[in-house]
Amino acid sequence: MTRFRYLSFTTDYGLEDGFVAACRGVGARIAPHAAIIDVTHLVPPGDVRRGAAVLAQTVPYLPPAVHVAVVDPGVGTDRRGVAVAAGNSVFIGPDNGLLSWAMTAAGGATRAFSLTNRRLWLSQVTPTFHGRDIFMPVAAHLATDAELTAAGEEIDVGDLVTLPAPERVVRDVTASGEVLTVDRFGNVQLTITAADAAQIGVRRGGSVLAHFGHRQLMLPYRETFGAVATGELVAYADSAGLVSIAVNGGNAAQRLGLPPGARVSITVIPEIINS
Amino acid sequence: MTRFRYLSFTTDYGLEDGFVAACRGVGARIAPHAAIIDVTHLVPPGDVRRGAAVLAQTVPYLPPAVHVAVVDPGVGTDRRGVAVAAGNSVFIGPDNGLLSWAMTAAGGATRAFSLTNRRLWLSQVTPTFHGRDIFMPVAAHLATDAELTAAGEEIDVGDLVTLPAPERVVRDVTASGEVLTVDRFGNVQLTITAADAAQIGVRRGGSVLAHFGHRQLMLPYRETFGAVATGELVAYADSAGLVSIAVNGGNAAQRLGLPPGARVSITVIPEIINS
Amino acid sequence: MTRFRYLSFTTDYGLEDGFVAACRGVGARIAPHAAIIDVTHLVPPGDVRRGAAVLAQTVPYLPPAVHVAVVDPGVGTDRRGVAVAAGNSVFIGPDNGLLSWAMTAAGGATRAFSLTNRRLWLSQVTPTFHGRDIFMPVAAHLATDAELTAAGEEIDVGDLVTLPAPERVVRDVTASGEVLTVDRFGNVQLTITAADAAQIGVRRGGSVLAHFGHRQLMLPYRETFGAVATGELVAYADSAGLVSIAVNGGNAAQRLGLPPGARVSITVIPEIINS
Repeated sequence: MTRFRYLSFTTDYGLEDGFVAACRGVGARIAPHAAIIDVTHLVPPGDVRRGAAVLAQTVPYLPPAVHVAVVDPGVGTDRRGVAVAAGNSVFIGPDNGLLSWAMTAAGGATRAFSLTNRRLWLSQVTPTFHGRDIFMPVAAHLATDAELTAAGEEIDVGDLVTLPAPERVVRDVTASGEVLTVDRFGNVQLTITAADAAQIGVRRGGSVLAHFGHRQLMLPYRETFGAVATGELVAYADSAGLVSIAVNGGNAAQRLGLPPGARVSITVIPEIINS
Repeated sequence: MTRFRYLSFTTDYGLEDGFVAACRGVGARIAPHAAIIDVTHLVPPGDVRRGAAVLAQTVPYLPPAVHVAVVDPGVGTDRRGVAVAAGNSVFIGPDNGLLSWAMTAAGGATRAFSLTNRRLWLSQVTPTFHGRDIFMPVAAHLATDAELTAAGEEIDVGDLVTLPAPERVVRDVTASGEVLTVDRFGNVQLTITAADAAQIGVRRGGSVLAHFGHRQLMLPYRETFGAVATGELVAYADSAGLVSIAVNGGNAAQRLGLPPGARVSITVIPEIINS
Repeated sequence: MTRFRYLSFTTDYGLEDGFVAACRGVGARIAPHAAIIDVTHLVPPGDVRRGAAVLAQTVPYLPPAVHVAVVDPGVGTDRRGVAVAAGNSVFIGPDNGLLSWAMTAAGGATRAFSLTNRRLWLSQVTPTFHGRDIFMPVAAHLATDAELTAAGEEIDVGDLVTLPAPERVVRDVTASGEVLTVDRFGNVQLTITAADAAQIGVRRGGSVLAHFGHRQLMLPYRETFGAVATGELVAYADSAGLVSIAVNGGNAAQRLGLPPGARVSITVIPEIINS
């Protein structure tokens, strides 16, 4: 019986070595029927939080799958590997929080297993490449004919390591948070949600006052960066439902000096009603 | 009925975020039978002309497909999305010229439709990610069972936005043009064709005088860069049929300071016939 | 009859142009049943040795396949293209040593053919893109229904170009070699094997004295980089069975100034036995 037609694969392995290919090869040998969708392999080395954010924002658009994610600075130490059922999918990786936001996005973890069944691993396991030797072979077996319960000892889902949820506070006319991610275009994605913005009274066509560091900037709040002139700053609800700051045709993160983790708040600017 | 076995996918989304994967996931859900061939996702952000050139030079080697291309600085504004039949394929993307050179390479557009049928889109459409929410789902539906005519209102193919053809002028013994692309190796691809070179009398084994900026350089015209010594400059007809300038084992664009758009002309150097 | 379900693909083509996609398209047209596993396309331009190392370390984890590899600074000159049977696979590429280490890893070349049968090529062959015009179409035909013997004239496997094996010398308590590769994480992989280390008396939990340039460094020898504190140096047997030097959570190649080719030796440090 085939359980999953798809695997997804998220790592910090980069693309210049053969690491991703070795894992794909292992997957193909065990589960030749399965297609592997690469989420990204360019998570900055060891950046668990960045990996968690990318995975969580992508998973809602993927088909039911065994999602393998490996950003694993503790590989070979006593951190455990896990396989967790959440929604219609299974998540496999190190138990270091990497999977936690994505499992929440998928509907929440329902059962969890520590990867202790060596019969689902490669016969030789190296201490530094569990993606190839443990995570991918387990995933491929689960996609093919192994039951999730065969992955190893069941553990309490409440014992899984979770990253703290992205911080945000809404009070009166101000929403405060931080930079969650910066994408390829330099768009600055905040932890503040579009719903937070609505709650403090921001509406499309209006404006917000953004505070960060010692700076204050008035930004138009629009549907899309294309709604302002080239080179101008704009705030908008992005494709993940989060408030973001962009420069139309430019790079907002560079312009404003806003890396992931920087604290930003937005305050609604009251509109003068002309009636 | 399955209409297309392949999709191709060209964007400026980069590989460090989950954007490409989200689109692939959407495609897999709607058209699980279809394979997606990535053309490139490293078009410089918003560089429609570069995207158009890469796509046009690649499409002739791809199987019949629904070609999805998204380099879309105007996303969310009133630029329209289109689906266009050309040759044995369908091209889908923003109507900003990105698709135009590839459609010419495929034999020319025959019918065009504005993407107005929301039943082929995701149920929720964000203003900044039409690749995921509109272009890919429409493409996947067209690859599966939807008729092209279901994409939306038919429009006149003559009304499609086209990029001006790469500029080049041939006169007497000189062909003038500009740098169309610079590839990973630093090879400088001109808009001047191998046929142009032949027309002004250049032949393999001969030489050309290249003019750019205030410089003049005599270049051997050979079959391949490997025909000159390591570190030497050479002109040749490249794998897309365009005159290119390379350094054997080096980077010609860096050496000569020739970015895309720089004006270059070549003049044939008469040969002294020894008989 | 289908001979191979998989192709693998290793090049220095990069990902910003359409070169890889054009090859994939050619492969899909000829062998639509075959899946293509990308090993890497980010081999530094023309770096045959790096391509050979990545391929050799990846192939043992790939399913039986036609392995296409193209790092080919001599394209279009008189270097020949070859198809070689080794283990359960076939290797195709330029006869410049690129394939040699991988074929050894696969069990050694058994039969070799010069690619002289133009019926397996594209009908038009350009002098600078044999990946698209020769290597991939030949590979796809061999994966589908062509016999290996149809690739061209048989040649002596002893006449294939081979790269010299990575240099290493073991004497008494010292193993000497060089840096074979540096991976994305900055881990420095030596040509010295884990077996060499064992032979000179190094054991996990002990220490080695590393010599390079005018420097000497004492390094703990552990199972994995995670066994030392963040920011500390460590030596270990890596996932390819080679001695490597890492910084836990950091970049050893940058810290130590050790690029590929740098000479490094390790000497065992005697342990004081407490009993």
